[in-house]
Amino acid sequence: MKTIYSGKTKDVFELDNGNYLLKFKDDVTGENGVFDPGANTVGLVMEGAGRAGLNMTTYFFRKLQEQNIPTHFIDSDLSEATMTVIPATVFGNGLEVICRYRAVGSFLRRYGMYAQSEQSLDGFVEVTLKDDERGDPPISEDGLAMLNILSYEEYAQLKRLTKQISDIVKAELAKKGIELYDIKLEFGRHGQTGETMLIDEISGGNMRAYKDGQYIEPLELERLLFAEG
Amino acid sequence: MKTIYSGKTKDVFELDNGNYLLKFKDDVTGENGVFDPGANTVGLVMEGAGRAGLNMTTYFFRKLQEQNIPTHFIDSDLSEATMTVIPATVFGNGLEVICRYRAVGSFLRRYGMYAQSEQSLDGFVEVTLKDDERGDPPISEDGLAMLNILSYEEYAQLKRLTKQISDIVKAELAKKGIELYDIKLEFGRHGQTGETMLIDEISGGNMRAYKDGQYIEPLELERLLFAEG
Repeated sequence: MKTIYSGKTKDVFELDNGNYLLKFKDDVTGENGVFDPGANTVGLVMEGAGRAGLNMTTYFFRKLQEQNIPTHFIDSDLSEATMTVIPATVFGNGLEVICRYRAVGSFLRRYGMYAQSEQSLDGFVEVTLKDDERGDPPISEDGLAMLNILSYEEYAQLKRLTKQISDIVKAELAKKGIELYDIKLEFGRHGQTGETMLIDEISGGNMRAYKDGQYIEPLELERLLFAEG
Repeated sequence: MKTIYSGKTKDVFELDNGNYLLKFKDDVTGENGVFDPGANTVGLVMEGAGRAGLNMTTYFFRKLQEQNIPTHFIDSDLSEATMTVIPATVFGNGLEVICRYRAVGSFLRRYGMYAQSEQSLDGFVEVTLKDDERGDPPISEDGLAMLNILSYEEYAQLKRLTKQISDIVKAELAKKGIELYDIKLEFGRHGQTGETMLIDEISGGNMRAYKDGQYIEPLELERLLFAEG
């Protein structure tokens, strides 16, 4: 298998049939041992984090497939902590698409003049560039189009899919009494058709979730989500 | 006269008839004695900068009036370095609307992964919040609407006016062999009608202009613009 990419929380390999294999690690993003989904550094290792994340990702990607939402998901193997996916190319050097239901994190750091901490944001969608060196700057629809990162049509689709997907995740968490504050998604173009589809993963490391006003760590979120009863 | 506002480069007073009087200072924004239109600090004092800026502002606001572009301009008095304007309320606590023809400054600092220094940007419009403490963060159309800073209709008008006005300034400078790289405008709502109109000023301190590849300081720009022949 050819290594395509080695990332902070997973490695990507190319399979003989052309599909990609994602191998998840137990590293999670954060700083100084504290988990932070928005951080650019791997701050700590959580035993079983890779499998737990994959379990959640598999659960949500199957939910999305049922609703005909395009994703790169083909199959997963929990025991190996691997996921098989359709090859995709990212927009530019990669975008993060964030859907926000409450004002926390970088939203509050930027727009604190106008927003109260934890105020409702009604599924606000924003896009940031994946660029560690420049602090993942936010970018507008016009900026994305002008820099040829994506077209206006692709932006509209990206935004529509982000709302749809995030609302599904939010509703699933709500069934367990958990509230989704924000979620970070990644999209790409289908390697063959060019269609915009959800890539990467949907795990605790990609979102901020709260229960009874308390923030829930990724591993605990996974445990709560799949707890019986 | 009642003082309404005391700013970095001007003070604002209320006249008896309800209009506002702007009194320009010789301070210009920058850091460590170097002019920077994007800076939040007053870095230096340039003798005559207030009058020179007002002269340029008057020139451009009259040009805009001729083309029926709504501005707050009523009249100006160069000897007093004052300008009479229609009272306006700003959007939120104030926005900066930037029109970019070439990639320099904060655009390059944010989007340098995708843009070459000085590459053509074709009149790209972006909005930042006036918020010194948070480094004047950029904000999207959706963000502005969601935070009730302005409506989608007002944003569309803001963008349309920004392109129109910036293109006029660019064309005027071009007549003198000067190239406009970027310009920073401010808009507000007409105190009575609520109509979106250009407020503040259009002077060397609001733009980056180049001649023969060399950056031109605000005072020099004013001199070149009004030079005979």
